[in-house]
Amino acid sequence: VAVETLVYEGKAKRLYSTDSDQVLLMEYKNSLTAFNALKKGEFEGKGQINCEISTLLFRELKKNHVSSHWLETVPPNKMRVLRTKIIPLEVVVRNRIAGSLAKKFKLHDGDLLQKPLVEFYFKDDALADPFVSNEQIECFGWATREEIRQLQTMALQINQILIQVFHQCRLNLVDFKVEFGRLTSGEIVLSDEISPDSMRVWDAATGERYDKDRFRLDLGDVKTGYNEILQRLKLALGGLQ
Amino acid sequence: VAVETLVYEGKAKRLYSTDSDQVLLMEYKNSLTAFNALKKGEFEGKGQINCEISTLLFRELKKNHVSSHWLETVPPNKMRVLRTKIIPLEVVVRNRIAGSLAKKFKLHDGDLLQKPLVEFYFKDDALADPFVSNEQIECFGWATREEIRQLQTMALQINQILIQVFHQCRLNLVDFKVEFGRLTSGEIVLSDEISPDSMRVWDAATGERYDKDRFRLDLGDVKTGYNEILQRLKLALGGLQ
Repeated sequence: VAVETLVYEGKAKRLYSTDSDQVLLMEYKNSLTAFNALKKGEFEGKGQINCEISTLLFRELKKNHVSSHWLETVPPNKMRVLRTKIIPLEVVVRNRIAGSLAKKFKLHDGDLLQKPLVEFYFKDDALADPFVSNEQIECFGWATREEIRQLQTMALQINQILIQVFHQCRLNLVDFKVEFGRLTSGEIVLSDEISPDSMRVWDAATGERYDKDRFRLDLGDVKTGYNEILQRLKLALGGLQ
Repeated sequence: VAVETLVYEGKAKRLYSTDSDQVLLMEYKNSLTAFNALKKGEFEGKGQINCEISTLLFRELKKNHVSSHWLETVPPNKMRVLRTKIIPLEVVVRNRIAGSLAKKFKLHDGDLLQKPLVEFYFKDDALADPFVSNEQIECFGWATREEIRQLQTMALQINQILIQVFHQCRLNLVDFKVEFGRLTSGEIVLSDEISPDSMRVWDAATGERYDKDRFRLDLGDVKTGYNEILQRLKLALGGLQ
């Protein structure tokens, strides 16, 4: 194995080069941030938990024919992924009203939407990731109209699969954020991660929140919440092997 | 003529009932506001100038087969309009970067867009008229997908006509906001007003601003700017008769 060189460090992950041009090693860090990095925290084992949850979900999506950058997981907290050119959009899928949507329209947290809502945010920390319309995305050249349609379709497919998975775990998938990247072939694949950092999952019976809102809103021990999601997923999906 | 009863008072206009169920009398006020009504002002003759500009533009749009609520003007500052059920969206068309778009993406004021950009804002003072996507409009039932397409098409048509009109006046149409309403037949028509309150028009040679930005940003006498637009339009379009 060639020497691994750090090629990118983000708020919750590091990316390293590997012996293959097409492959990167993604390391999940123990840190977490909220409110455009104004609030910072970390806990021991967070990187491992998120890596394991992402692994289970990427694997389940793959079984359901959703292509992602995930190749294999290198325990405890790394995964080998395909190198992609990231599309600079955060793609949010909402099943229920929560977070910024509740705030923007003064709506009631937890209310079900008639059908899933896909939203795009332009990935730019300096601009605080502004909400953008399809027309703006096209106008500024971040994706073509055809690509936007493909992102919406893929996001809704992923949502349907994840809803099922979490349903088996007696969890409601309230919303989540995904990112997509282009392979050198031009194919668009799911990229980044899918973890409690980037989703809201509530206990189906009690409404207890197990995701990053625990950290954002100081709702209880964060590790306990993340671990609850992981243990339920393992039970439903049969562990990492 | 039946007694006219005030049925609505907004920031810059009043609406009165008439002897016909289908017709309202719209009065242009001398007041103007900015920044979600945090900044307030007024000047003598403003209502009349805006009514005359709106008249000239509605008339020109009608010649070009764009239906609006405008029936006839009652000088100095009123017009008879068709009663519509307003669609709660501000439809913005931008030809150049300015105002909130420049701020949102930290872009250069005045830069030309590759093609006109249509944006929707949800009309709600308490929410400060948030920017919304087509998906949100559909999701919350403010308009159907087909209606959104129609609004976009009509807004772009209006833009092409207005660009030509202002070009004859040696003015650049930077952006504008329009509203639409549904007639009892269900037909969607241009509603509200088209005036310097709701558009940016800059001198084509010098870039001098003649619109509400003079008021927003204290760029010079507001009445002088509004009157400049009116006089140039009268010269190009042949007055109110």
